[in-house]
Amino acid sequence: MTAADSSATPAFVAVDWGTSSFRAWLMAGDGTEQAESRGGEGMLHCATSGFAPVLRDHLAQLGAPADVPVLICGMAGARQGWVEAPYLHTPTRLEALHAGAIGVDTEGDVRILPGLAQARADQPDVMRGEETQLLGVTEPDFTGIVCIPGTHSKWIRIDAGAVIDFATYMTGELFAVVSQHSILMHAVEPEASTVAHDAAFRESLAAALAAPTSLTNALFRLRAAQLLNFEQRSDGAARLSGLLIGSEIADARVRFGAELPLRLIGAGRLGRLYCAALAAADFDVNECDAEQASRRGLVKAARQIWGARFRP
Amino acid sequence: MTAADSSATPAFVAVDWGTSSFRAWLMAGDGTEQAESRGGEGMLHCATSGFAPVLRDHLAQLGAPADVPVLICGMAGARQGWVEAPYLHTPTRLEALHAGAIGVDTEGDVRILPGLAQARADQPDVMRGEETQLLGVTEPDFTGIVCIPGTHSKWIRIDAGAVIDFATYMTGELFAVVSQHSILMHAVEPEASTVAHDAAFRESLAAALAAPTSLTNALFRLRAAQLLNFEQRSDGAARLSGLLIGSEIADARVRFGAELPLRLIGAGRLGRLYCAALAAADFDVNECDAEQASRRGLVKAARQIWGARFRP
Repeated sequence: MTAADSSATPAFVAVDWGTSSFRAWLMAGDGTEQAESRGGEGMLHCATSGFAPVLRDHLAQLGAPADVPVLICGMAGARQGWVEAPYLHTPTRLEALHAGAIGVDTEGDVRILPGLAQARADQPDVMRGEETQLLGVTEPDFTGIVCIPGTHSKWIRIDAGAVIDFATYMTGELFAVVSQHSILMHAVEPEASTVAHDAAFRESLAAALAAPTSLTNALFRLRAAQLLNFEQRSDGAARLSGLLIGSEIADARVRFGAELPLRLIGAGRLGRLYCAALAAADFDVNECDAEQASRRGLVKAARQIWGARFRP
Repeated sequence: MTAADSSATPAFVAVDWGTSSFRAWLMAGDGTEQAESRGGEGMLHCATSGFAPVLRDHLAQLGAPADVPVLICGMAGARQGWVEAPYLHTPTRLEALHAGAIGVDTEGDVRILPGLAQARADQPDVMRGEETQLLGVTEPDFTGIVCIPGTHSKWIRIDAGAVIDFATYMTGELFAVVSQHSILMHAVEPEASTVAHDAAFRESLAAALAAPTSLTNALFRLRAAQLLNFEQRSDGAARLSGLLIGSEIADARVRFGAELPLRLIGAGRLGRLYCAALAAADFDVNECDAEQASRRGLVKAARQIWGARFRP
């Protein structure tokens, strides 16, 4: 942090308030961060302890002046969150996000950005938090695909800055429940790093891409292959990961197309796995950091709400 | 039970010893049952308490004479069971099952039938117990498909009495872990009867048959559809069931073909669901009772081992 940054008047506080995590940044008028505060007080925690005291503590932690406004994205705006910020319905331009922000009846100017809903009976879907990342990583006229891997992976088709289709895949959550609660607990080592077993990951990824309808059979085969000594338990986590990520990508590339540019919002281990997997499935990938995406999205929306607080 | 049956000399005791259940029948020389004894002392229970005392108690319950031989199928023959009965490898004729039976070093003549293994690196698979049901429901020259729904559903291609290919789908287990341990716990009522929600079952079955690559997305859609008020929680179990059974059948009909005759080994609620689902997928279905299938298979194998004890 430079001296110039710390002396600048803060423009607003950016908050990414998820299901099980809280992250806040004090942001300067030029869009740079001046301070950061994070904790485990996500929506689930606050549903019992309350949201206002958690925000107050983090604002103090950040050293935020009393009159600085706060913009929040994520699960704090869910029905079971602080105040419900009703979903914007697709198709919608990402630049319209700020207009759906809901003011919270609390000290100061605190607003929560809406999530997105795809209210189609054949393809119902919802997101909260990812819409702000989308705003953060796309230009106003962007046309292409964004992939956000995670517990519930999101794939989004954007056309000239408007979200026109999206889908959620239960990839990360299936990995967790199947490796902890099914017969595959015998086939997957809980602590195994999938990165250390690159060949196993790529092999089962290729198998899933080649046979995308056979997931529930392929899951059992992970166990049978070890019983019959074709595979080792130490590779189990990498193979399960390749299988689930491969199933996701096999379906998504048909629905969203592999010919458009793809922005991957992810970092660390999962980002690397998806980079390798998307390249194997012939996508042209451009990787972005997830936290930076949230912050940039919050800055773009805040500029539209409180323009005078920002330098042009 | 007729007087003639109960006075006949018993030929053998048929035992289906599964992971979590035990079922035994005292069988007459004409292949009819004279008595039945069942309990929860499956392999998991016996792994700590021992197998021999459990069998002794049930033989007493059946009133079996001391010299009557015992033929067992199922998990008692697994590596973690009583005595390992090594897998027969496919392709194998079902009539060869009896030749793979392993004698147990205990009181009397007690033998355990082997399971089947498909020892192919690309399609590894195993079964224990179902091979005896296959023997029970097929004629020596049978050509066709057998489907055995359950926790781990089995599909088997039989050619002139020989098992040439089979696959296991984790359908029932996925239903359990996903509805109990994932976000879908909010979308599925644990006690809901799927039979009472026939339209919901058929709708999601049709969707899965039409889009067989999108399972991990369709799972999340179950939740999103309820959040957006397109569907009701009371239909959740039926929809999840239709989705998983549809995914299984969509893959199996490509691998095993829908043009051959299909024998469905199942009864009760699950049998009815599969009957409806297989008919919707254009299979020509012939339904058989699962317990009867096991008993008939054990009788066929016992006749080959102890022929003199049976009437021709």
